[in-house]
Amino acid sequence: MARHPTRGETTDGPKTPTVYDVADRAGVSIATVSRVLRTPDAVRETTRARVLDAVRDLGYVPSGNARALAGRKTGVIGLCFPGHDGLEEADRPAPGSAAAGGVRIVDDRRRGAGWQSPNLYFDEVLRGAEVEAWRRGFALMVAAGRGPARDVIVNDIAGRVDGLAVLARTVSDDLLVHVARRLPVVVLADAARTGTNPLAGLDQVSVDNAAGMAALVTHVVRGLGVRDVVYVAGPPDSPDDAERQRGLFAALDAVGLDRAAVPHVRGDFRRDTAEAAVTELLARRVPRALVCANDQSALGAMDALGRRGLSVPGDVYVTGFDGLDVGRFTQPPLTTVAQPMAELGRAAVRAVVARLADPAAAPLSARLPVEVLLRESCPPVDTSM
Amino acid sequence: MARHPTRGETTDGPKTPTVYDVADRAGVSIATVSRVLRTPDAVRETTRARVLDAVRDLGYVPSGNARALAGRKTGVIGLCFPGHDGLEEADRPAPGSAAAGGVRIVDDRRRGAGWQSPNLYFDEVLRGAEVEAWRRGFALMVAAGRGPARDVIVNDIAGRVDGLAVLARTVSDDLLVHVARRLPVVVLADAARTGTNPLAGLDQVSVDNAAGMAALVTHVVRGLGVRDVVYVAGPPDSPDDAERQRGLFAALDAVGLDRAAVPHVRGDFRRDTAEAAVTELLARRVPRALVCANDQSALGAMDALGRRGLSVPGDVYVTGFDGLDVGRFTQPPLTTVAQPMAELGRAAVRAVVARLADPAAAPLSARLPVEVLLRESCPPVDTSM
Repeated sequence: MARHPTRGETTDGPKTPTVYDVADRAGVSIATVSRVLRTPDAVRETTRARVLDAVRDLGYVPSGNARALAGRKTGVIGLCFPGHDGLEEADRPAPGSAAAGGVRIVDDRRRGAGWQSPNLYFDEVLRGAEVEAWRRGFALMVAAGRGPARDVIVNDIAGRVDGLAVLARTVSDDLLVHVARRLPVVVLADAARTGTNPLAGLDQVSVDNAAGMAALVTHVVRGLGVRDVVYVAGPPDSPDDAERQRGLFAALDAVGLDRAAVPHVRGDFRRDTAEAAVTELLARRVPRALVCANDQSALGAMDALGRRGLSVPGDVYVTGFDGLDVGRFTQPPLTTVAQPMAELGRAAVRAVVARLADPAAAPLSARLPVEVLLRESCPPVDTSM
Repeated sequence: MARHPTRGETTDGPKTPTVYDVADRAGVSIATVSRVLRTPDAVRETTRARVLDAVRDLGYVPSGNARALAGRKTGVIGLCFPGHDGLEEADRPAPGSAAAGGVRIVDDRRRGAGWQSPNLYFDEVLRGAEVEAWRRGFALMVAAGRGPARDVIVNDIAGRVDGLAVLARTVSDDLLVHVARRLPVVVLADAARTGTNPLAGLDQVSVDNAAGMAALVTHVVRGLGVRDVVYVAGPPDSPDDAERQRGLFAALDAVGLDRAAVPHVRGDFRRDTAEAAVTELLARRVPRALVCANDQSALGAMDALGRRGLSVPGDVYVTGFDGLDVGRFTQPPLTTVAQPMAELGRAAVRAVVARLADPAAAPLSARLPVEVLLRESCPPVDTSM
């Protein structure tokens, strides 16, 4: 303990406490201090309390330590996500009203139908990323790509961090490739990696869209024995939807059902678009199952079925994809495929850290497991409830 | 344009482009460049396109500019929020499974009842804060106060930013007061400001809990003429619940109803706790209306009523508070008071920026307006639907 400077040794002003000071005061090793700060659950409670008391008493801030490690110039990882275009205008209160409080009363009985989820689980991605960044000794900076300045915003953040995790379609692929020449960039939740994909050289973390959809469709066509299925597709340029369709086709192939036997109606992941497409479909015929590219489309499909007086699941089975919370509260609750969003954020940060440690490694393509949640809109084969 | 250095004048390596270079290239003033980057909607589209082209061509990054302004040392604002204790363990996949993908199938037909919203609208607060920070020339850093190291985490972030916005009950009041000696700290969504409150000296931004609850209760007791009301309270130490109770009492006073005529059952903002408390209440008697301290409690109340075979709103009116998305999808949809969460994030950032500009100003106490959303669980007085 005599090799390193201890508290009070320097004379140039108040000394910034180091990890050694904390270890000295708590009577533990510096490895234990580090474990308490990064993975507290792995340390006995009495030891933890002693270390945290020492941290508090000394006013110790651990970041300087982390920043000195290889590849860490700023000690910060950036997380970029798609912004809400229009948030800037839509949410602004009337001038002068902000500080004064007040209340407005709204008849909101029909607004649910127009609802679009604004967040798509980004909150969970963020929380996972934040936990993992802290554990690895980094702070997390966030930026939304929004409006015409989206590339500028992401470029700005790139200048302030050691590495970036970017949700799919936050900014143009060109910008990401450009930024990736300067620092590690990990792309989240976009599965397509082909020779022509400009992002093919970047690290990517995605969820197993194809396996999730294949398991769900297998449940419908083999488990429930339904052959009359229509797929409510996502937008044509969505790599997520492309993967989900790949899973759909794999399931059809496996049970020996012709792919052409499952027609598609075109959606764009939006509730109102799916409602319109399914309304048009129902005017021609009523399929036994609607497999939808995402939860919002499934909500729109249920709206269309409800207005035709058709029952879910009695007349038509409906399935979604994403695992939004609202699926627990629809009537009936929605069968869906849940994405591990918090784990996606954690995996992205791990990938950035791994890339900082080994810039020459081959591009990572991690795919996270998903869960099929069978609820009442397309229930398990055992229908006893 | 000759006063300032232009592109290529310096000789020490590749020159970092400045706002002047962008203005020169686009043929506009630097004020216009700044407006395009911060408030693009305020600029004509042709001008905007020219400026953004110049920004892209030059690879201009605007943060250096912002950082030079008064009070901005890092150009970063921190946003601290309560973490999920347990996130570290709960969401971790089985070892080895992360990169391989895969799928698990779950019978999820009864899980809705145990659901707790993990995010409480934090996503919206974050997006509002991010928009406003960018507009003011700052980047946004985030940190969750979680687990035994929560004070250390927030202290760490405090060392990396010019100012902090902190959601209520992220960390101890003592730590906030301590941090506020070094840099501006704005507390979000906690309304109590009393002589004994240790945070009384800090800037605070909250929503108008009292006015929202008063308007809602006035609707119940005067609009619908209900006198047999029970309040499902929040935790005793919650300043938000204290404010909501203040609004409840103000509404009762205004209609001349004795406060004691509205008994309380004790909850803690959790769905399962409220369900248990209301189940116990219903064993004794069935009130005409349950006014709940938050949406999660209202969901629990509806669970308890449903299990007793009581109809909402036919037998019992139910109201919540918060405006969670799920309230649109409950059966029936939930009457609630919506908080302006994005605006809360924006107002917090504005308060940090104002404090940086004027450290000596009196503490701010801003209160944002709320919206009462009347839905089917406690409908408008005009019941034609």
